[in-house]
Amino acid sequence: MAFQGKKLINDPNDVVTEFIEGLVETYPGLQYLDGFPEVKVVIRADVIAATYGKVAVISGGGSGHEPAHAGFVGEGMLTAAVCGDIFTSPPVDSILAAIRAVTGPLGCLLIVKNYTGDRLNFGLAAEQAKSEGYKIESVIVGDDCALPPPRGIAGRRGLAGTVLVHKVAGAAAAVGLSLVDVAAEAKRASETVGTMGVALSVCTLPGQVTSDRLGPGKMELGLGIHGEPGAAVADLQPVDVVVSHVLNQILSPETNYVPITRGNRVVLMINGLGATPMIELMIAAGKAVPKLQLEFGLAVERVYSGSFMTSLDMAGFSISIMKADQTILQRLDAPTKAPHWPVGTDGNRPPAKIPVPLPPSHSTKIEESLSRPLQLSPQGHILEVAIEAAANAIITVKGSLNEWDSKVGDGDCGSTMYRGAIAILEDMKKYYPLNDAAETVNEIGSSVRRVMGGTSGILYNIFFKAAYAQLKANAQSDVTSKECETNLM
Amino acid sequence: MAFQGKKLINDPNDVVTEFIEGLVETYPGLQYLDGFPEVKVVIRADVIAATYGKVAVISGGGSGHEPAHAGFVGEGMLTAAVCGDIFTSPPVDSILAAIRAVTGPLGCLLIVKNYTGDRLNFGLAAEQAKSEGYKIESVIVGDDCALPPPRGIAGRRGLAGTVLVHKVAGAAAAVGLSLVDVAAEAKRASETVGTMGVALSVCTLPGQVTSDRLGPGKMELGLGIHGEPGAAVADLQPVDVVVSHVLNQILSPETNYVPITRGNRVVLMINGLGATPMIELMIAAGKAVPKLQLEFGLAVERVYSGSFMTSLDMAGFSISIMKADQTILQRLDAPTKAPHWPVGTDGNRPPAKIPVPLPPSHSTKIEESLSRPLQLSPQGHILEVAIEAAANAIITVKGSLNEWDSKVGDGDCGSTMYRGAIAILEDMKKYYPLNDAAETVNEIGSSVRRVMGGTSGILYNIFFKAAYAQLKANAQSDVTSKECETNLM
Repeated sequence: MAFQGKKLINDPNDVVTEFIEGLVETYPGLQYLDGFPEVKVVIRADVIAATYGKVAVISGGGSGHEPAHAGFVGEGMLTAAVCGDIFTSPPVDSILAAIRAVTGPLGCLLIVKNYTGDRLNFGLAAEQAKSEGYKIESVIVGDDCALPPPRGIAGRRGLAGTVLVHKVAGAAAAVGLSLVDVAAEAKRASETVGTMGVALSVCTLPGQVTSDRLGPGKMELGLGIHGEPGAAVADLQPVDVVVSHVLNQILSPETNYVPITRGNRVVLMINGLGATPMIELMIAAGKAVPKLQLEFGLAVERVYSGSFMTSLDMAGFSISIMKADQTILQRLDAPTKAPHWPVGTDGNRPPAKIPVPLPPSHSTKIEESLSRPLQLSPQGHILEVAIEAAANAIITVKGSLNEWDSKVGDGDCGSTMYRGAIAILEDMKKYYPLNDAAETVNEIGSSVRRVMGGTSGILYNIFFKAAYAQLKANAQSDVTSKECETNLM
Repeated sequence: MAFQGKKLINDPNDVVTEFIEGLVETYPGLQYLDGFPEVKVVIRADVIAATYGKVAVISGGGSGHEPAHAGFVGEGMLTAAVCGDIFTSPPVDSILAAIRAVTGPLGCLLIVKNYTGDRLNFGLAAEQAKSEGYKIESVIVGDDCALPPPRGIAGRRGLAGTVLVHKVAGAAAAVGLSLVDVAAEAKRASETVGTMGVALSVCTLPGQVTSDRLGPGKMELGLGIHGEPGAAVADLQPVDVVVSHVLNQILSPETNYVPITRGNRVVLMINGLGATPMIELMIAAGKAVPKLQLEFGLAVERVYSGSFMTSLDMAGFSISIMKADQTILQRLDAPTKAPHWPVGTDGNRPPAKIPVPLPPSHSTKIEESLSRPLQLSPQGHILEVAIEAAANAIITVKGSLNEWDSKVGDGDCGSTMYRGAIAILEDMKKYYPLNDAAETVNEIGSSVRRVMGGTSGILYNIFFKAAYAQLKANAQSDVTSKECETNLM
């Protein structure tokens, strides 16, 4: 069943030019060259080619990978980005326009992802620019680790690792290195990074139909970032398993794609492919770090989790691992004004967690002093049976409650109630003072308050507080404990 | 047809705790309280409650809105974020733990989105904290503009505008203001921001089935951020129309939800809902700014485009407009270490575009000096007919080429070829020197080089360069022009 992909766009032919217009409205540090629709070049607003005293760093390629590449234009990273049409290399004249717009006497480094179209167009532009008197160097990035060598004449594809190369080159240029030195650092970085991706869905090009290549419950491993089929299709697995598989592929000693061995320092990038919620990227990051440390014996120095080089609306992520020495870390940590380079990723790592502060109030003391009576009174026994029955009833209707709730809300009412019921059953076994109905009700309130959030949680909390107050009042006015429990039932 | 939603997660019950573990691996400036699974609190690693000399700013709520709220923890924004389960308000004890962990002598501001669960849980936590001796203020944010007043006892929902309130409050706290003053600034900000969203898909909760509520070609207007149905379902429109509709709703003088009138200064937020590619958010931003300026007479001082308060994997965006005076702008521009507050959004706006630099070479000069002959020679006429036929043939097969290309690549071969053919037809009319076959072939190469990117573009480029060289060589070796054109045919 193929249907038109849904997008919030106007004319599918205008998506890249309209993207650039919105980008420069958002970031006043960026400008574009007035050559739409053919020339789609984003440049730093503060660079004047004739007098620019640093090496210019230019990258680009087909669009559809945002924020790459235009979102990485800024002091300390790219000087210009050349945007092609969606998944189409920019034409030579566009690349030449970018070179002419930002290249000063120190020259220009072109960072090119390893695709035939990009290599040819950037290559021809470089030759033309040289003939115009510009100093030009090029670095080709092919960080793909999905397929074992040999990869034919085309070689390994350029993927998200390219963004790390941008940062290294941009920071090297920013400190005033020569073109030869900037190119050498970029080349070294490109040779020590490996990437592999996993997709849950295929991306849809603007104005085209949505592919049903991947059915329910399937994932593609080793995908390309242009909707190319992955190296393998597999049943969807827990992300733990997926992360392990991808790390094994990248660091495989058999392919030897990246020169990373036990004891090395590395940086990790978890790159969302466009439609992946941040919550999933962070879960992958949280799993990859201990695996790299414990299973591969690597020191993970930096983690970059976010969407850096996407594939339109593809769901999934890629993982990149780059070998990191002191120079590389210095380049990655260097400040940049590029709006989409992640911030707050550097610096010393304090312990991840600290203890929950103890409340000054009596609530924990009560828990400690409370305990389930060794011998239940008849009333205590009735109370236990009643609480157990109520909790089990809630546990039984979890699914139905979720289903009903999903008609009017977010479909989690059953799960929330279930959590409360489980906690009540566990806590009752441990410390509910069942022979004291009032205190038991109070403890039910504590259990609920601890584990049940949401509106239902707080309403039960208020209910149990009120019930406790009433029972206490009754008890104090010399109503017998017997009557009190009868009231409760 | 309902099927299990695809997610890169492990146990659906662990997504929030595993998210937090990955978050603190990524950002060394963040820590969490060691109280999983019940207490899910992210705090600034550099704050010690007892000695903290600023007002603490705490927010939170159900998870599933990442980066809100934990991604906004950092100096200059939130001091702590309390994370509930997915779309479920955090329990009172979690909120209390956060308050105790970061609140110093100056007290704590709670910023709460207007949902019953959040208000009750944060409200009860505030009362409890006050009873423990803490100074606490609360600000409720309800920026939803989807439904006209009255909105019943629940009132307007809190949406992405809350993130702007976080920033204002965090920056006010960072400069050392008192709790009363920080709360006053946050309250004022919350009263001048309006938000409305549009969704193309419904989000899927971890472990649950994907809803088919929205069919192909439909969108929901005025959605909630928890999968609540929107205020209206409509046929999908161009984003220009969608942006106009949403701006009209937010700024409607009838509902008077935000006190913004002609001549005011405002900031704009285009907020992705989780699965929306950045390219679409930027297109919306690029459309909203001129509309606000020209149709509503507002000065747009800042634009924030990105994913700030999402709804898991929902496709769509919300637009927020906030009235901005000098103080508000100062708070929004103030530096922050919160990793997900956008950077590079402040500063003076230079002209958005600058002219494409002129090449030093002869290529434009040729274009200027070239012109279509007034009178075509017989050979020139044959050449024109041949070029026209070839171009039209390409135009005819655009769709088929795209379809075939989509089997092996990205499905744009036909579109790329089409662009080249159209440019050749247009340029031929304007300036191809048709009586000179060699120069005409050279100009075909220029047309192609200007508009066709991708691999096919560059290959044609190389082809026409070679053809031109051959024709030139032939012409120079006294081969008659007649023979030369016959060769070309």
